[in-house]
Amino acid sequence: MIPVRILGTASAVPGRTVTTEELATALGRNPQTVEARTGIRTRHWSAPGTRMAEVGAEVLRRALGAAGLEARALRRLIFVNSTGGDALIPATANQVAAALGLSGSCDAFDLNNACMGFLSAFDLAARSIATGLGPVAIVTVEMLSRAVAPEAPRSYLVLGDAAAAAVLGQAREGEGLLGSVLSNNGALPPDTVLAHPLRTGQPERVQFHAAREELRRIALDALASATHAVLAEARVALGDIEWVLPHQPNGSMFQSVLEMLGVDPARTVPVVEEIGSVGAAAIPVSLDRLLRTRPVRPGDRILMTGVGAGVAQGALLYRVGP
Amino acid sequence: MIPVRILGTASAVPGRTVTTEELATALGRNPQTVEARTGIRTRHWSAPGTRMAEVGAEVLRRALGAAGLEARALRRLIFVNSTGGDALIPATANQVAAALGLSGSCDAFDLNNACMGFLSAFDLAARSIATGLGPVAIVTVEMLSRAVAPEAPRSYLVLGDAAAAAVLGQAREGEGLLGSVLSNNGALPPDTVLAHPLRTGQPERVQFHAAREELRRIALDALASATHAVLAEARVALGDIEWVLPHQPNGSMFQSVLEMLGVDPARTVPVVEEIGSVGAAAIPVSLDRLLRTRPVRPGDRILMTGVGAGVAQGALLYRVGP
Repeated sequence: MIPVRILGTASAVPGRTVTTEELATALGRNPQTVEARTGIRTRHWSAPGTRMAEVGAEVLRRALGAAGLEARALRRLIFVNSTGGDALIPATANQVAAALGLSGSCDAFDLNNACMGFLSAFDLAARSIATGLGPVAIVTVEMLSRAVAPEAPRSYLVLGDAAAAAVLGQAREGEGLLGSVLSNNGALPPDTVLAHPLRTGQPERVQFHAAREELRRIALDALASATHAVLAEARVALGDIEWVLPHQPNGSMFQSVLEMLGVDPARTVPVVEEIGSVGAAAIPVSLDRLLRTRPVRPGDRILMTGVGAGVAQGALLYRVGP
Repeated sequence: MIPVRILGTASAVPGRTVTTEELATALGRNPQTVEARTGIRTRHWSAPGTRMAEVGAEVLRRALGAAGLEARALRRLIFVNSTGGDALIPATANQVAAALGLSGSCDAFDLNNACMGFLSAFDLAARSIATGLGPVAIVTVEMLSRAVAPEAPRSYLVLGDAAAAAVLGQAREGEGLLGSVLSNNGALPPDTVLAHPLRTGQPERVQFHAAREELRRIALDALASATHAVLAEARVALGDIEWVLPHQPNGSMFQSVLEMLGVDPARTVPVVEEIGSVGAAAIPVSLDRLLRTRPVRPGDRILMTGVGAGVAQGALLYRVGP
């Protein structure tokens, strides 16, 4: 076990609510059909000019409040994002730290692993704390609305903006990661791509290269494999796990994951219908809502299982402490 | 101490040699003056279309060779880069893993902390290994030639491309990080910026916003503060340290750092005159050259001290094992 405690969390959906009806109509498609296929009714798109660092600082302030910690207690701040942050240089993490008035007390860097970014960061934060570092904040901000356009309708119809923060610190008895299995499947070509404008010299949008059914099959295989690997590592049966938080790339994928794994819907926290496909923010937003709204008890296990472009995949199994 | 062992390293300067004479002449400036001011005679610029993942896979193959390890022994691959990688999605780390034929055995993600990226990644790799993970590779690739243009002459005249890999694994007796102090100075505005083309809708180049003397003062203060902090943590005097590898943003800064700290030039590895300002790659390239060409002995201490846009700063003190 890697000892670590979730001290506090927060989440936010920045910007106006954009309905699937609005987007489908603009594209000349039938709103009901699009809603049924995507399982997404609404998503949030932040106002142009909104800085990820502002939104990140705001959710982090709230997570610190929930943790009962001052910002200057933090020793590390990991900013998770899939699209390169507010600026490519410097790392946006530095601006989040600056917005909280931090100077000299905390390091800060950006991490990108597409939809797997939060799980990568959680593992690193846990290992940092287990080796003696003080509290670590993970701030995940996705503003995927910046990387969509009607010309790339598949991503335009599903992507949205969201943010979440988790503050982790020293574990109490029996608390921490019972398992952490993060991996990469290099045998598959990239199926979801946001090309780099510095390299192509033109504006770029998120493109799904794989066909819909292929993308679905790849994601379900990865989630199944990651889930079974972490359960094997922790020697726990899925039926014994109290809470299951899978990645939620769209509504039908989310339903399929629950069916495939045989997870009772009461043991999870659906968010995709309301907030859309929000990359690395999906799991931490559902984690925040889980901890705020469900009867989570000491000893409960929370399984977080994800897949992202890469193909990257993995799962963490966290045991809640006293 | 965080126990960790450097198992093998490698470095490369991809692309053609570009002289300061060539660039200064193109800008209508006096080559001798520019060379004297920057302390840079040459740098390498990779051919258009070169993928960071290719270059990264190649240096990693060599570092694995030096370590006597197969690629599939790796459990984690951290790709360090300042400009967003080959594509924004997926993380370029996944493509490096794929190029090495890895599938299912290793996780992979990208880390950006401008010029501090390698030190951030080294700390994370050490903490990963200390908590039981197998060998971790850090692959740093900077292709800053993609982010320069004559219209931004200050960065055009100094930035270059370089790559380095370090494979870290389980420590032997007395080996590892005697100190690791990584931090952030939020009181300073960003002085070096690469704006995000997704946000601005136009091509972007690296811009130095601070005046030359201001940038120099900020960097020297940060390097001094980071160096003294890590020495205090490890309770070692600078005069007792065998090898010192500071960040090398330009030749005159590098000289000033050595003078400020009172470091004998025989105890360091100059690279900037030959390879230019290569962001996060400067320290790992000098580390690779140190380990290959200098009489480094068991028990020697290697101080790596850096500063980057953010302002991010920090230092690691590594003790070489038997």
